[in-house]
Amino acid sequence: MEQTDNDRFTEHTQIKPYKKDALYSYTLGAFPTYELILSKPEAVLKVLIHSGYTDADGIKALCTRSNIPIEVNNKLIGRLSDKENCYVVGVFKKYSCRLAEDKPHIVLVNPSNMGNLGTILRTIVGFGIYDIAIVLPGADIFHPKSVRASMGALFKLNFQLYDSFDDYRSEFNKHELFTFMINKENTQNIKNCPKPRLFSLVFGNEATGLDDSYLNVGTSVMIPQTADVDSLNLTIAVGIGVYEFTR
Amino acid sequence: MEQTDNDRFTEHTQIKPYKKDALYSYTLGAFPTYELILSKPEAVLKVLIHSGYTDADGIKALCTRSNIPIEVNNKLIGRLSDKENCYVVGVFKKYSCRLAEDKPHIVLVNPSNMGNLGTILRTIVGFGIYDIAIVLPGADIFHPKSVRASMGALFKLNFQLYDSFDDYRSEFNKHELFTFMINKENTQNIKNCPKPRLFSLVFGNEATGLDDSYLNVGTSVMIPQTADVDSLNLTIAVGIGVYEFTR
Repeated sequence: MEQTDNDRFTEHTQIKPYKKDALYSYTLGAFPTYELILSKPEAVLKVLIHSGYTDADGIKALCTRSNIPIEVNNKLIGRLSDKENCYVVGVFKKYSCRLAEDKPHIVLVNPSNMGNLGTILRTIVGFGIYDIAIVLPGADIFHPKSVRASMGALFKLNFQLYDSFDDYRSEFNKHELFTFMINKENTQNIKNCPKPRLFSLVFGNEATGLDDSYLNVGTSVMIPQTADVDSLNLTIAVGIGVYEFTR
Repeated sequence: MEQTDNDRFTEHTQIKPYKKDALYSYTLGAFPTYELILSKPEAVLKVLIHSGYTDADGIKALCTRSNIPIEVNNKLIGRLSDKENCYVVGVFKKYSCRLAEDKPHIVLVNPSNMGNLGTILRTIVGFGIYDIAIVLPGADIFHPKSVRASMGALFKLNFQLYDSFDDYRSEFNKHELFTFMINKENTQNIKNCPKPRLFSLVFGNEATGLDDSYLNVGTSVMIPQTADVDSLNLTIAVGIGVYEFTR
């Protein structure tokens, strides 16, 4: 039987550029690596440091305290990162979470862009929402680009992946649903719509939004906007939605 | 004396990949090209169409009506665009604008990312703000990446570039200034701060924010956020700021 890379990850396991089906991923840069170690120390396999990193004392102390091995390896950092100025990389095991039943959720249906996904994680944590469901297919939440765009917020929240919206809904049926889409005269202005304690805000794909199957789901809400744009960017729509519902 | 490319642009001028000091730029994709032709027809030099574009009738009719030359040129489109699925390119002369004196402004100080800049243009137009000042150095508003991220919103607003904030301020001294930064006990929560009719919302660079020289400028405002993030993404901060001030 084939042995996958880090079924048994050791200090000597070969670290390769990220792939979607890998069992581990990377934080690229000192800031998200700090956030990783502080929030999920048990998931960290190793920290790579560039020999030119002038500010290594802090991260070294933190690794020592958490029993995390450190390796100085410029060549490997160069292979894992596409940016010149990456001096610290965290190697971590992917993990799974459970959404809280009694907290508000964000639901992203088929998000396609990893930068957007990461920015959304950063934004919802900034506004105090720590539970996000993703309906697949969708951008890979563990891809180093998603992790970097989240600025480490990924490690502070719970996420769950679903094959369909119905799968999500059957697991959490007490949340009041708000779909960000136009449903003719049934659409409510986000400023005036009711904002219950336990809600799920549901957003569609960047290019296509939510399809017609969502017309019968929950309450349709819209963010008022001028006719001079086709739509708002997905990250902005999520930002305004979360801001309004957590005011 | 050296002749620059489109001092005298004709149908036969050679079109090259974008450079910052070029006198012309490009819309990559059908949607921003439509927006360009509809909003700034006088700036359009030519429209390039890919032979595989199946939906060309609409754009051809629009070009004919506006006396804009069309060229089918797959190779040139490939050279100008880094994406596979680009079927339409608009070639346009760069132009300058004047900010409206009696309308609210957004002021970006040293924005560094073209995708962020374009998303900000799209967002402010979506919320009804059509005047933006950029303090240099900063991302190139005419770069095809900025234009694409704006989804054509660039062509619907006025922008002006300044060498310093003081230059902007001396030109528009009636706007009440709101700086998005922390200024100790003088900082107001965006939810409660006064929102006058004529305002300028001032935002700093993605990485560094506004420097201390802005502490004595206008009213310092903040968007409440959890301690679990270092800051909000610049585009989100602008989105929330514009949303609140135009409610």
